[in-house]
Amino acid sequence: MTALVRRRLLAEFTGTGLLVAVIVGSGIAATRLTSDDALRLLISSVVTALALAVLIVVFSQTGGAHFNPAVTAADWILGRRGPRRHSLGQAVAVVGCQVAGAIGGAALAEAMFAQPVLRTSQHHRGGAPILLSEVVATAGLLFVIVTLARTGRPQHVAWAVGAWIGAAYWFTASTSFANPAVTIGRAFTSTYAGIAPASVPAFIAAQVIGGTVGTLLAVALYPIRHTPAPAGQSAQLAG
Amino acid sequence: MTALVRRRLLAEFTGTGLLVAVIVGSGIAATRLTSDDALRLLISSVVTALALAVLIVVFSQTGGAHFNPAVTAADWILGRRGPRRHSLGQAVAVVGCQVAGAIGGAALAEAMFAQPVLRTSQHHRGGAPILLSEVVATAGLLFVIVTLARTGRPQHVAWAVGAWIGAAYWFTASTSFANPAVTIGRAFTSTYAGIAPASVPAFIAAQVIGGTVGTLLAVALYPIRHTPAPAGQSAQLAG
Amino acid sequence: MTALVRRRLLAEFTGTGLLVAVIVGSGIAATRLTSDDALRLLISSVVTALALAVLIVVFSQTGGAHFNPAVTAADWILGRRGPRRHSLGQAVAVVGCQVAGAIGGAALAEAMFAQPVLRTSQHHRGGAPILLSEVVATAGLLFVIVTLARTGRPQHVAWAVGAWIGAAYWFTASTSFANPAVTIGRAFTSTYAGIAPASVPAFIAAQVIGGTVGTLLAVALYPIRHTPAPAGQSAQLAG
Amino acid sequence: MTALVRRRLLAEFTGTGLLVAVIVGSGIAATRLTSDDALRLLISSVVTALALAVLIVVFSQTGGAHFNPAVTAADWILGRRGPRRHSLGQAVAVVGCQVAGAIGGAALAEAMFAQPVLRTSQHHRGGAPILLSEVVATAGLLFVIVTLARTGRPQHVAWAVGAWIGAAYWFTASTSFANPAVTIGRAFTSTYAGIAPASVPAFIAAQVIGGTVGTLLAVALYPIRHTPAPAGQSAQLAG
Repeated sequence: MTALVRRRLLAEFTGTGLLVAVIVGSGIAATRLTSDDALRLLISSVVTALALAVLIVVFSQTGGAHFNPAVTAADWILGRRGPRRHSLGQAVAVVGCQVAGAIGGAALAEAMFAQPVLRTSQHHRGGAPILLSEVVATAGLLFVIVTLARTGRPQHVAWAVGAWIGAAYWFTASTSFANPAVTIGRAFTSTYAGIAPASVPAFIAAQVIGGTVGTLLAVALYPIRHTPAPAGQSAQLAG
Repeated sequence: MTALVRRRLLAEFTGTGLLVAVIVGSGIAATRLTSDDALRLLISSVVTALALAVLIVVFSQTGGAHFNPAVTAADWILGRRGPRRHSLGQAVAVVGCQVAGAIGGAALAEAMFAQPVLRTSQHHRGGAPILLSEVVATAGLLFVIVTLARTGRPQHVAWAVGAWIGAAYWFTASTSFANPAVTIGRAFTSTYAGIAPASVPAFIAAQVIGGTVGTLLAVALYPIRHTPAPAGQSAQLAG
Repeated sequence: MTALVRRRLLAEFTGTGLLVAVIVGSGIAATRLTSDDALRLLISSVVTALALAVLIVVFSQTGGAHFNPAVTAADWILGRRGPRRHSLGQAVAVVGCQVAGAIGGAALAEAMFAQPVLRTSQHHRGGAPILLSEVVATAGLLFVIVTLARTGRPQHVAWAVGAWIGAAYWFTASTSFANPAVTIGRAFTSTYAGIAPASVPAFIAAQVIGGTVGTLLAVALYPIRHTPAPAGQSAQLAG
Repeated sequence: MTALVRRRLLAEFTGTGLLVAVIVGSGIAATRLTSDDALRLLISSVVTALALAVLIVVFSQTGGAHFNPAVTAADWILGRRGPRRHSLGQAVAVVGCQVAGAIGGAALAEAMFAQPVLRTSQHHRGGAPILLSEVVATAGLLFVIVTLARTGRPQHVAWAVGAWIGAAYWFTASTSFANPAVTIGRAFTSTYAGIAPASVPAFIAAQVIGGTVGTLLAVALYPIRHTPAPAGQSAQLAG
């Protein structure tokens, strides 16, 4: 394992961990401070959006800043024939670090808020509308990421992913997990952000379907890959 | 129909659909979680602004990311003599996809939230102040889009349109529909974001007037079109 | 009067008018929808910040996008010997258009919300702490604008001014008017955003003092003017 | 002392002062206007994030815009052998100006809100979870700053630091002071943002530990320093 790969794994572990710490921690804080359910979710969504954008920016130059097995899978599949392809073994190791980081992040948030650490959630989530929500949220997320990569505009990924997830907290009925590693990590907290372990497999299945749909849509709309465009020409709307 | 046109139509259908899904879905979620009307509208406005910016960025390179017949009409009229002109038939097809997408997006949001699908709204909206609001909101929207196109700064369209619409939710009395396709889509939901079908024609008329005013103002202020400027010179304020 | 000057005056009239319409309109809407005073002000501050950033971007290329006599005065004084200097007569005309636009914007908002138009405010504001707040808010605003101009980074003006004013709604006790034209416009509304005409002169005096302090601080910190820097080198923090 | 150093010290004094004025002032305003604790903290966090981003942008070209002894320390240690190194004496003077500014900023906010000036806080904060929170918040802050410096992307520092601190208000249990100078300044206010002087030393110790952890992590992940990259290539995510 080269130093570059070690750094990438460290980045995925740390970044996914901080992401889950943000989700779990802000949920605990918001629950403590207000009884208004909408204000709680508004706080969680805004805080997650801000932190996710920062985390992507600061970890992006280690080779990814995926923090999400669905993204790593799409990256591996689409990149197989490109100059930046990685081995399947590395992709699996990345996913392992994401899951470990997610669980560690839940524990970190609970320690900061003096909560019992890694007690599994009793919050059952599921049913067709909720799972459809996960499909939509994950499809959108992968569509955003793959599109920006294929159209040569990686500098937009950080804020666009943050904004998409922040919005998807609200316009889906599942509050948009959209991430198998984060879903597993959130199974290990009995706080606001938790999900019962029994609900996890269906969530992950919906995320896999959604990720596939979003990736295929991006490839259909942008069949040719572009390299990063010169500055000042990133979007186009004539009038 | 070329592959490029097919991709553009798919983008307009999908993007307008997701936009309406965001508006309708976040309205349902906010209504369920709080009884504070201002918090409900704050959530809808912030979520719409974030999602709209993302949707414009990710669909912009298919030839538009208009999601709005008023924008498509202005683009077609102003672009008639330019190198990027489209046929009237293509513009009409784009508008058709926007309307179909808007209705589909309402249905998608309702399915995610386990609501009756495509039940028409009973929420009557209208009267001179409300219609004046639609004129102002749509005029501002078109002014923003046409100005940024004519001054060669397309990279600002996504966030500026999101911010304008997010603000217009509040400073107009109509909560700023500003989009005939979205207005039609919202007629097909009996939830928070709905508008009674009988109210739709006056809204669209006001939007057409507003779009015309905004486009003319942009042309008056910026009579000469510029190509995209080099980075770092996009705004000017001396001091 | 050249066409360029006419366009600049139209831009200052329209832009200042929309800014005041945003402030007054969002205040009316927030007051109607909630009884929580903090939520009302949060909405006003966020909406003003978003709209101000957009308005600066779309009107900036007409020669200013000042919307504020304090900014126009600083621009005229600092620009006297530069290549982009304007006549005193033009500066006075700009200020006249700002004030007329501000009053028109208040009327527009009231018409959209079916309120009595241009009824003067009974809301007295003043006292040393409030006036100190206006000094601080205006000093900060001018410092931001003059600094970004002198350090060759005009592309940051729009978001930075929006963010500064949005924050100053909260960390000052006056909710940060920071603008003589907007202050006059807000005297002509009896709604949430109003200020009694008798309170206006002291506000403007405080704004003049603040604008002078902020401008002098910017000149002291950045004695040499820079032209716009190449992209990617706009901020500096070593580590 | 050269003119450049004098300007840097003035910038650190003024910038840190305004930062604390924002934190203390927005806390007073939010406390007055609502009884909802979550809304109070949401307002404080959003306002601090916006103002911090602006302050970094406008003071950054004086040689730092640190406003934080932890950042100045990391900058001094990491920059010892580089071309932009400063003397230890200058670093100490910078920290002195930060602390003086922080106290002055608390006084300024209290004067604007007609509160007793510089009355020390009775608000005890501490305990292992709170101190762990300070370690995490400061580690993240230094990681963000040092990473962006080492990867040649200083243009992202302003918004990323604002977003990180805004998020850390919520996902840590201490509301994220993450700054020894600001902590000292907040000991001098008996308002919402205050911290009892007896609680300060442990907070600063936690911040020193966190700052060290964050700096080391950044150096481990990015062992080689890069100069600023050309525009449009700042982030990378393949797909």
